[in-house]
Amino acid sequence: MEMPTPDPAILAKKSAVVARLTSVLPKDAVIHEEAGTRAYECDALTAYKCPPMVVVLPSTTQEVVAVLKICNEMGVPVVPRGSGTSLAGGALPTADSVILGVARLNDVLETDYQNRIIRVQSGRTNLSVTGAVEEDGFFYAPDPSSQLACAIAGNIAMNSGGAHCLKYGVTTNNLLGVTLVTMDGQVMEIGGAHLDAAGYDLLGLVCGSEGQLGVVTEATLRILPKPEGARPVLIGFDDNETAGACVADIIKAGVLPVAIEFMDRLCIETTEKFANAGYPDCNALLIVEVEGSEAEIDEQLGVILQIARKYDPVELRESKSAEESAKIWLGRKSAFGAVGQINDYMCLDGTIPVSSLPYVLRRIGEMSKEFGLEVGNVFHAGDGNMHPLILFDANKPGDLEICEAFGAEILKLCVEVGGCLTGEHGVGIEKRDLMTAQFTPEDLELQMQVKDVFDPAWLLNPAKVFPLEASASRRTLAA
Amino acid sequence: MEMPTPDPAILAKKSAVVARLTSVLPKDAVIHEEAGTRAYECDALTAYKCPPMVVVLPSTTQEVVAVLKICNEMGVPVVPRGSGTSLAGGALPTADSVILGVARLNDVLETDYQNRIIRVQSGRTNLSVTGAVEEDGFFYAPDPSSQLACAIAGNIAMNSGGAHCLKYGVTTNNLLGVTLVTMDGQVMEIGGAHLDAAGYDLLGLVCGSEGQLGVVTEATLRILPKPEGARPVLIGFDDNETAGACVADIIKAGVLPVAIEFMDRLCIETTEKFANAGYPDCNALLIVEVEGSEAEIDEQLGVILQIARKYDPVELRESKSAEESAKIWLGRKSAFGAVGQINDYMCLDGTIPVSSLPYVLRRIGEMSKEFGLEVGNVFHAGDGNMHPLILFDANKPGDLEICEAFGAEILKLCVEVGGCLTGEHGVGIEKRDLMTAQFTPEDLELQMQVKDVFDPAWLLNPAKVFPLEASASRRTLAA
Repeated sequence: MEMPTPDPAILAKKSAVVARLTSVLPKDAVIHEEAGTRAYECDALTAYKCPPMVVVLPSTTQEVVAVLKICNEMGVPVVPRGSGTSLAGGALPTADSVILGVARLNDVLETDYQNRIIRVQSGRTNLSVTGAVEEDGFFYAPDPSSQLACAIAGNIAMNSGGAHCLKYGVTTNNLLGVTLVTMDGQVMEIGGAHLDAAGYDLLGLVCGSEGQLGVVTEATLRILPKPEGARPVLIGFDDNETAGACVADIIKAGVLPVAIEFMDRLCIETTEKFANAGYPDCNALLIVEVEGSEAEIDEQLGVILQIARKYDPVELRESKSAEESAKIWLGRKSAFGAVGQINDYMCLDGTIPVSSLPYVLRRIGEMSKEFGLEVGNVFHAGDGNMHPLILFDANKPGDLEICEAFGAEILKLCVEVGGCLTGEHGVGIEKRDLMTAQFTPEDLELQMQVKDVFDPAWLLNPAKVFPLEASASRRTLAA
Repeated sequence: MEMPTPDPAILAKKSAVVARLTSVLPKDAVIHEEAGTRAYECDALTAYKCPPMVVVLPSTTQEVVAVLKICNEMGVPVVPRGSGTSLAGGALPTADSVILGVARLNDVLETDYQNRIIRVQSGRTNLSVTGAVEEDGFFYAPDPSSQLACAIAGNIAMNSGGAHCLKYGVTTNNLLGVTLVTMDGQVMEIGGAHLDAAGYDLLGLVCGSEGQLGVVTEATLRILPKPEGARPVLIGFDDNETAGACVADIIKAGVLPVAIEFMDRLCIETTEKFANAGYPDCNALLIVEVEGSEAEIDEQLGVILQIARKYDPVELRESKSAEESAKIWLGRKSAFGAVGQINDYMCLDGTIPVSSLPYVLRRIGEMSKEFGLEVGNVFHAGDGNMHPLILFDANKPGDLEICEAFGAEILKLCVEVGGCLTGEHGVGIEKRDLMTAQFTPEDLELQMQVKDVFDPAWLLNPAKVFPLEASASRRTLAA
């Protein structure tokens, strides 16, 4: 992991860059003192840190245009940043870069219930999109665990998912259009409040491109009517493999729960101590939630319970009240925090075909012994989106490196069984060197040529996504 | 509309091309006699015709690789063709081109019910994908009207939809992976049997790229469990606008029918004479279908009927039996054929925000009088995917030109209200010159640069999608 530090050349350039940026932005929208830039030195992948040269906080698309034009002319790398909740280092600065934070772009521009859309500025937080429409009975479906803090801009960059995406899809399935500013300051309207689009699907391409093709300043999102009701059921099993097999059977049966969440013993115990959710003492736990009217809920849960009983569960608890439902979810939603209270951990998000769940869970258990590091599993089982949490001790020399090597092996395993490196967190810096496990050199070359089209000088978030070696010749301007 | 005819230079090249192609393909897989090539002179947009230089019918991915390598070396344009059902001229040959037909690539490679996927060769017809899994209770959701004939390859090229895509999404929402052969003969595996993918979303980009980025030889598709049951309801209204308002209200209410189909008087009457579906005598008709268990169906139809009654319908007929349901759908599915029996027509597929339906339907009626050509409307109303059928007389000089001008105005109207040129048929040659109504020169340049990445010499389906003038400098090798 390279970790550039400011050098004289950067310091010399900095004053010229700051002078030009302050000429187009309000004074308080350009942060260049060290105390200020340090707040942006990392995102939620805190193992890696590097303060940027400058931070800008534009409030309008036009200010974003002005910033990008200046940086393009001056050859300054730009790292776009939503709320900095990336678990993959997607918003990690380099020492010579300008962080372009979209936090001040947080207005609702339009709500249109008849067409079921909302148009927002991209810095608006995920949960506050729902907040803007929930009184009228609507919601925005993708729900990352960080939804209180994370920005729509980051959701689009990483094509974020969440617990309830099994039914409603991830960001790309709920995004209808964006306003994109390319590195040379061009403003593009892509997609809109309609089905599909003529020409190539650039909207799909932009979604998940990790801020490398342009800066999204506005987004048109699909909103959905709130379902009448929802009800979770807790199902406990003796072992991970049985739970995994039960998930595969539920999916095969064709009922579509909104969520199927999985927790193993380590996560159940840690969470229970932390949140007192009343989870049973067992080795593997599923939370399966269905939505709809009472009749629909009864019918769907009927099918699910019938399947679950075939697997001889040690616990089968259907929620009987809103309080009970809240408690069931409280545990799941506290899991990451609970594990984090007592351990350093690295959270992966490799994704696999659902039928491979039992095998992959067993192999992770075996590898845990080989590497000598504990692993907790808490994840979106219904769509095969795993979240192994590898525990390590940040104060113990060498432990992070073992953790990284272990994580790499898990992600390669995911690719081997026909899955992929990341389901919703993105590649960022965390997995860039693993891209060769998934893609051939020709595949990577073609993807990089797509970036060439949008950003010929590779100034936008340059040292991410692709193996550093593969992208080296293109990143001549970046550190 | 240019219509190139074979010239001496093409004839000279032809023998060299045929010699090389027959060296890598079975004899019966290379068609070069005029009687044979003429069968490929057009697709379902029959107003435009041009026999290709040669037709090849490879049976394997490796044969596709061999063909593309030869054509790439020799600078011969290649027009990929599924089943030739394109309504937009997507598979129209040029006189100097090789038609690459995928009809012999029709095997099922794998079915996997636990992961709910099927992998097929791309020439397999849409309906026979469902055919391969329906005994086991599954189906493939996208259902273009041409589903008996159209190939998955064409569905992917055009991102095809269908009547039931309101609930299940169009092709891009049901496509998990492809094997793509690029013009230089590289084989790429894009996506797979898992959620999302690392790196850029090339799968989304390929879907809907109209055979311009590569030739898809295999596809991994999402299959779904067949719903327990389905029930349509016929709702008749006095006028188009009321029907449009009712659709917008149903969508707003948050029930999700699998289909909301719309027919106006011209289509109702023409269809009724042809198919005897027992449609009522009214000015606008909706067919709304819901799926699920009996309880779910009752509940959803309850909400829909309640909304419909507010609009004072002249007919409200819930299907009481499988026979009645089949008859209701028979009419809708016969509509295009029925209109075609008595008229030449051009079928558009502009797509608009659902709330604009009443306004756009009224404007189309007004424009019909201005241009002096009748219009029938029969379309997927739930997702705003319109299908105006402009009637004209192919034997009357000038009528086609008036029809084209009228069609262009309708599509521009769709863009004006925030919609787009095509919902599911694609741009092809039909709408290439209208792309400037939707996209700025900068937008088009960027899209063409994406094609440059995949196909630098612009040999794959070159004269489609983009305005001829805009793409001229790139198409130096194509006719």
